[in-house]
Amino acid sequence: MIVVLDPECSLKEKAAVVRYVEQQGGRLLVSVVGEETHIGLIDSEAQALAPEIEMMAGVSEVRGVAPPYPHVSREYQPGPTEVRVGDVTIGGEEVVVMAGPCSVENAEQLEAVGRSVAKEGARMLRGGAFKPRTSPYSFQGLGEEGLALLLKVGAETGMPVVTEVVAPEDIALVASYADMLQIGARNMQNFRLLSEAGAQEKPVLLKRGISSTVEELLLAAEYIVSAGNSRVVLCERGIRTFETATRNTLDISAIPVLKQKSHLPVIADPSHAAGERSLVPHLARAGIAAGADGLLVEVHNDPETALSDGKQSLTLDGFADMMDKLRGVAAAVDRRL
Amino acid sequence: MIVVLDPECSLKEKAAVVRYVEQQGGRLLVSVVGEETHIGLIDSEAQALAPEIEMMAGVSEVRGVAPPYPHVSREYQPGPTEVRVGDVTIGGEEVVVMAGPCSVENAEQLEAVGRSVAKEGARMLRGGAFKPRTSPYSFQGLGEEGLALLLKVGAETGMPVVTEVVAPEDIALVASYADMLQIGARNMQNFRLLSEAGAQEKPVLLKRGISSTVEELLLAAEYIVSAGNSRVVLCERGIRTFETATRNTLDISAIPVLKQKSHLPVIADPSHAAGERSLVPHLARAGIAAGADGLLVEVHNDPETALSDGKQSLTLDGFADMMDKLRGVAAAVDRRL
Amino acid sequence: MIVVLDPECSLKEKAAVVRYVEQQGGRLLVSVVGEETHIGLIDSEAQALAPEIEMMAGVSEVRGVAPPYPHVSREYQPGPTEVRVGDVTIGGEEVVVMAGPCSVENAEQLEAVGRSVAKEGARMLRGGAFKPRTSPYSFQGLGEEGLALLLKVGAETGMPVVTEVVAPEDIALVASYADMLQIGARNMQNFRLLSEAGAQEKPVLLKRGISSTVEELLLAAEYIVSAGNSRVVLCERGIRTFETATRNTLDISAIPVLKQKSHLPVIADPSHAAGERSLVPHLARAGIAAGADGLLVEVHNDPETALSDGKQSLTLDGFADMMDKLRGVAAAVDRRL
Amino acid sequence: MIVVLDPECSLKEKAAVVRYVEQQGGRLLVSVVGEETHIGLIDSEAQALAPEIEMMAGVSEVRGVAPPYPHVSREYQPGPTEVRVGDVTIGGEEVVVMAGPCSVENAEQLEAVGRSVAKEGARMLRGGAFKPRTSPYSFQGLGEEGLALLLKVGAETGMPVVTEVVAPEDIALVASYADMLQIGARNMQNFRLLSEAGAQEKPVLLKRGISSTVEELLLAAEYIVSAGNSRVVLCERGIRTFETATRNTLDISAIPVLKQKSHLPVIADPSHAAGERSLVPHLARAGIAAGADGLLVEVHNDPETALSDGKQSLTLDGFADMMDKLRGVAAAVDRRL
Repeated sequence: MIVVLDPECSLKEKAAVVRYVEQQGGRLLVSVVGEETHIGLIDSEAQALAPEIEMMAGVSEVRGVAPPYPHVSREYQPGPTEVRVGDVTIGGEEVVVMAGPCSVENAEQLEAVGRSVAKEGARMLRGGAFKPRTSPYSFQGLGEEGLALLLKVGAETGMPVVTEVVAPEDIALVASYADMLQIGARNMQNFRLLSEAGAQEKPVLLKRGISSTVEELLLAAEYIVSAGNSRVVLCERGIRTFETATRNTLDISAIPVLKQKSHLPVIADPSHAAGERSLVPHLARAGIAAGADGLLVEVHNDPETALSDGKQSLTLDGFADMMDKLRGVAAAVDRRL
Repeated sequence: MIVVLDPECSLKEKAAVVRYVEQQGGRLLVSVVGEETHIGLIDSEAQALAPEIEMMAGVSEVRGVAPPYPHVSREYQPGPTEVRVGDVTIGGEEVVVMAGPCSVENAEQLEAVGRSVAKEGARMLRGGAFKPRTSPYSFQGLGEEGLALLLKVGAETGMPVVTEVVAPEDIALVASYADMLQIGARNMQNFRLLSEAGAQEKPVLLKRGISSTVEELLLAAEYIVSAGNSRVVLCERGIRTFETATRNTLDISAIPVLKQKSHLPVIADPSHAAGERSLVPHLARAGIAAGADGLLVEVHNDPETALSDGKQSLTLDGFADMMDKLRGVAAAVDRRL
Repeated sequence: MIVVLDPECSLKEKAAVVRYVEQQGGRLLVSVVGEETHIGLIDSEAQALAPEIEMMAGVSEVRGVAPPYPHVSREYQPGPTEVRVGDVTIGGEEVVVMAGPCSVENAEQLEAVGRSVAKEGARMLRGGAFKPRTSPYSFQGLGEEGLALLLKVGAETGMPVVTEVVAPEDIALVASYADMLQIGARNMQNFRLLSEAGAQEKPVLLKRGISSTVEELLLAAEYIVSAGNSRVVLCERGIRTFETATRNTLDISAIPVLKQKSHLPVIADPSHAAGERSLVPHLARAGIAAGADGLLVEVHNDPETALSDGKQSLTLDGFADMMDKLRGVAAAVDRRL
Repeated sequence: MIVVLDPECSLKEKAAVVRYVEQQGGRLLVSVVGEETHIGLIDSEAQALAPEIEMMAGVSEVRGVAPPYPHVSREYQPGPTEVRVGDVTIGGEEVVVMAGPCSVENAEQLEAVGRSVAKEGARMLRGGAFKPRTSPYSFQGLGEEGLALLLKVGAETGMPVVTEVVAPEDIALVASYADMLQIGARNMQNFRLLSEAGAQEKPVLLKRGISSTVEELLLAAEYIVSAGNSRVVLCERGIRTFETATRNTLDISAIPVLKQKSHLPVIADPSHAAGERSLVPHLARAGIAAGADGLLVEVHNDPETALSDGKQSLTLDGFADMMDKLRGVAAAVDRRL
């Protein structure tokens, strides 16, 4: 429910409305939308307060709100959210490229990749230390040793670090090393993990589940934001369809759809969508053209020997080539890289 | 890799093979397949031991194994596994019906449903105390209070209890009340949860993810079994497709496919697949006809007021009617209810 | 729009209503539903006649109808339709098994298969003479020579023949040999073919498109029925999903859903759904248990050498074994084979 | 099978190879690939000629070819095909925009739309005269009257016309008015229509079926090309997935995948993919960024009153705005609009 205040509403009148809602046990969000000031009421019981509020001084209108994800909806906050990670801003004019290996394997690998992608314009370092793997017999990541390497290489190259967390009990550990927590596709509906990521302070990169709808992604983000952490970035990374020519099907439409429905930044992961190196630059260009606020890209110094996802990882040279072309596409849509 | 022993192999020779594998750090499974004794080697490094083992006394053959889920594969254990839960056997001649409400709501509800389904032939009691919900604003379950009610009504009606666990840190609590732990569709690839469910002793009901392949389900089961718990039952509960006439699409073929590929019991959940009460008996009949070892069915004493999944819950009378017809179908495929 | 007549309505009053509708250019369907007589008006302009009709003697009520496929909807005709093909009735108590090879290859093959399946209880002979093939380099069928063989073997074995027609210009030819025309999955939205199949007299077996919804299937049937041919049988044959363990995913729920929404008979094709012989009997049993009025099954005397679909064709012995078990399942759901 | 000629091969030697293949009943394609001259043999029996051909003078190598769609494969013809339609070239440096209404409704509508889109840079006029509609009660198109309007407005605005043909028996009529024949998604596997479109001379725009794989699309194109018409343009228009936030899911990856596998031009249809006007410009930009050779866009002078697809049709102003931005994206990927 949104309470729209009259343009002539005094601060005192506004405070009275806020106080009333809080006394009734309601939670609220205040935002300014063009000329209008909105007070958003989150709780489902809010509707019961409507008759009383409509009568209060300074209130011009009370509107119901359809979307079941009020905190992340454009109806509550019409302007875009910018999420800061270290000195990087996601959701502003700049398209933020996050690059690095799928898994952190050792210091040499991470340094080689980190230095190279930083030089070519990547702004954040990605890399997995805790890996959710379909088979129990696949490489499960270096754990804390990998986190320490990420911290070191991030600092050396001036890039904030984003890395995945796979269980609530690991959040404190991962957050002590990383600048941003990634919640992967397989955990998008691990609601305990979402709630606990919402109860800490580091920004969260939330990837869409492989067969989750746009609405389910927004509801998952609502779990995090409603628990208190509004610094959430959404990531489209390909969905599961009947088509097997690519690993997943990049749902390019989800980028503008998410940006219409939500004020949160949206990035694209062309690597997992494609599953094949030669397609990644094409999907990266398409992602930016469709309005993505950033890219998450897998890069490896020696993809043939990678412990995971080698087939879809760009080489160092491939990454450099891709970045060159991306600058023109970003400029064409009034962004910069 | 499977080591097939010679029928003439002595126990001493057999022990020597086992000892050799263990000294080399390998893990193994011994099983008797018809006339043959098999020693299965799980680890991927096992292949390196093959030349040595082939030369040992009592060994007739060393075979590679294709499936990436050795513990749950029919190639390792050709005969079916029976999983006992209390005095109920899943995977034997009897088709086991597990019934109860989606969510445990209060004592009256659970007692009414529990007594009624027990009288009509249900052998286990189901009910959710911890509910994974797509929206943070939906009813999240009664928690431990719900577990206590399940324990009480299960004891009163003589039915072992199966209930969902949604996070590794809840396993001990849930296992202290329930006879069988359910891992739901959204957590099928919560690998930490799988591993920890494999490190305790209660049997596990593992539901297929909404867009997981049969192979991914078997790999998820492999996480549990390879962690030490071989009492796993698989559950087909409908997959996500383009069709919206039903909530999900029951993949009826998955039942015989799973039983061909794995020795684990397989049950069907017609309620979540259908999403609509009137379809449930049809899908239940189809599931048994296709070879399911059991059914997981939602029943409510007053579906219109249910806090979750009311639309797909059978009424008490509806459940009784369904059971009547199921007996004939079970008999037609040489099973009993 | 449905005009419900008063129980006291005289035949003269009824005739006046009919005459009025026809004079206004409307088309109608008269049916008796329980105690009520209904006059269904098909055309979208029918709504304009409502005020006038409501005032006429003998009319108790005028109802709008939601489904966009009025002719095939249960709301128009609540009782089930039985479709007769030769001396076989589809949609009655008997579950009708249609069996034969995917493609008619030569006289020896068709005779061997036809005699064997007739002996085991098949009631209709299936076989393709015009084959729609994904590749232009695959076997395209024997054409008219194949039709002649079907006619001959059908007559010898006492089974009416169903065979596919792939283009409007072939309908007359195929109808001159076959007892029932099959419209395949790839042509389910070949609207010209549908309309022309509706403008001739032979009954039509309409297979669901590989990614068509239940509603689209009913709309395709509406093309045929609204063109004048009400003898239509629907066939669920598996849909395309992400799962690759089977050729297609048999949408078992579609069987009861179609029977709830439409009065037309519904059969299942377990062969194309499975794509693999060993699964066919399981899916056939499930289909009958779910309420199918018949089965369409591929059988070959030497599947290894089949020119198409050998992998999913039952052997002659496999068909016999399957039929034995099916009898019990049919009996359990109050049908017979 | 590909016969690679020696760089030193004389024309006489080359002619001898060609003559030999033709005498044996084989069909062939000659192409120049970089420095190499290739003779492609289409027929599956070609393999039998390999030993003889390998011995002939001027032949350096005989290679087998994997893809089942030889005529349209990059392995046969590594360079891109350019398809000319009137004075427009599809597959060259220019990105070709085809625009117009979903259905031709009347002269005023088509003229208003045609003039406007031509002025803004569209190079071809699209519009449906024969409409394949899911419901028999929907508007089915103006037929020949619509074709005549397209011819007239195309001539007035200097744009070649592309329009859909839905049945083999209509090809001659449609081809007598249109510059390019469109085969729609629902007819992508109408093999009779494909073959007959291959047996005439007008270029063909082949749209991907709503649930067809990339390989099936290429096999459908192979039907046309192998029947003699090599002027085929492929069109990605969205596939059916579980996501309902958009009408279909634009498979953006299919654009680079098709261009890797085939030498045929590939265009994108953002209108049908999105199903919603506000998303179309985003998808159009993404399509060009991903490498599309053109766009097929629905535009209407009064979308609210359109007889079909109004919701996804751009307004005249919306089209103009979109074109402005597209120029920059095209330039960024070394193309022009």
